[in-house]
Amino acid sequence: MFISFEGTEGVGKSTLIRKLHAYFLETGKDVVLTREPGGTPLAEKIRAMLLAVDHDEKMCADTELLLVYAARSQHLNQVILPALAQNKVVLSDRFSDASFAYQVKGRGLDQAKLEMLNQNFVTRLPDITFWLDAPIETGMARARERGALDRFEQEKMDFFTRVREGYQYLYERYPERIIRLDATQNEDQVFQQALAALG
Amino acid sequence: MFISFEGTEGVGKSTLIRKLHAYFLETGKDVVLTREPGGTPLAEKIRAMLLAVDHDEKMCADTELLLVYAARSQHLNQVILPALAQNKVVLSDRFSDASFAYQVKGRGLDQAKLEMLNQNFVTRLPDITFWLDAPIETGMARARERGALDRFEQEKMDFFTRVREGYQYLYERYPERIIRLDATQNEDQVFQQALAALG
Repeated sequence: MFISFEGTEGVGKSTLIRKLHAYFLETGKDVVLTREPGGTPLAEKIRAMLLAVDHDEKMCADTELLLVYAARSQHLNQVILPALAQNKVVLSDRFSDASFAYQVKGRGLDQAKLEMLNQNFVTRLPDITFWLDAPIETGMARARERGALDRFEQEKMDFFTRVREGYQYLYERYPERIIRLDATQNEDQVFQQALAALG
Repeated sequence: MFISFEGTEGVGKSTLIRKLHAYFLETGKDVVLTREPGGTPLAEKIRAMLLAVDHDEKMCADTELLLVYAARSQHLNQVILPALAQNKVVLSDRFSDASFAYQVKGRGLDQAKLEMLNQNFVTRLPDITFWLDAPIETGMARARERGALDRFEQEKMDFFTRVREGYQYLYERYPERIIRLDATQNEDQVFQQALAALG
C-alpha cells in the first residue's frame, strides 16, 4: 500500500505520519517512511537545491519543475516501487499532487507541462492520499513556531491560499483516491479520521 | 547567432571553440562561451551530479534525462536567450542534440520522452550545429591522453559507436542546421572547414 500525505505548511502531516507509522508497525507491517522532494541521497541533494533561499541566480520555472520530477523519478524507481514490490507500506510526505498544488496553482507553472511530465514519468500513483486541510492562518502560525522558514514557506499568504485551492481541485477530481482530513482538529482526532478512512 | 558543437569524446570541440571565439572577437562581436550540461552555477551543480563516477545509488534513466533537461532549461533561459537578445554570438559546447546521441542512442533512453521534453522545454535551437566527426578510436585515444575519464568516458567503445550513429541520424534529419566537419584533419583544417561553412 502506497499512502501520500498532502497539505499546506503546518497542517500536521509529520505528526500523522508518525502515528500511522507506529500503527502499521503494531499490525506487523514493514513500513517505509519517505518524503518529497527527496527520499534518496541523490533526490535529497536535488531537494537542497530546490529549497535553498539564496542562489547565485534565479531558478527559472521550467528548471524547478524538471528538478522536482528528476527527484520524484529517482524516489519512485529506487525507493517506492521496490518497497511496494516487497509488500511494504510506503508512507510518503508529499508526492505528485504537491507539484500541481504548489507549482501550478501556487507558482503559476504551466499545467500542460506538468501533466505531460506526470504522464511520462509518474508510473505509479498512491493508493490513498490524505489531504490535511486547515485554514492557511492555522498552518502558517504552526510553521512559524517551528523556526526558520524556507524558500517556499516565505511565500505570501495568497500563495498558500492558491495551493489550498489546488488541493481542493484535486480532491474534487480524484475523490476515489484523495481523502480530506479536517486538520483543525487535534492530533488524535486527525489520526482517528485517518484510521476510519483506512477502514 | 547561436552555434553548438557536437561530437564524441576527443574529436577537438574545445580547440575549435577556442579558435572560433578568437575569430569572432577579432571581427568585433561579443561572444558568450558556454557548455552543456552546465553553463550557469546551478546547471554546473547539476552537471557535477550527472558526471560523478560513484553515487551512493544508481541514477535511474528517467532521473538522468530530467536532470539534463533541468540544466538545459536553466542554461537556455538564464544564459543563451538573454545573450541572443543582446545580439551576442553564443558558442555552446554541446546542446540538445547531445541528449539524443548520448542518452537515446547511446544509453537506450526512451526517444518519445526526449522528444516530449524537447517540445516543451527547448524553446530555441542553434542556428548552426558543428558536428565534429571522426572514427571512435581516434577520439578515445585523444581523450585518454588528457587524463582521467569520467562516467560517460568510461563507457565502452560500442556505446560511442551508437552515439556517433545518433549524430549521423540527426545530421541526415536536419541538414539545414547541422554541418559535419571532418575531425580527422588537423586543428587548422577543421577551423577552416568551419569558417567556410559560416561563409
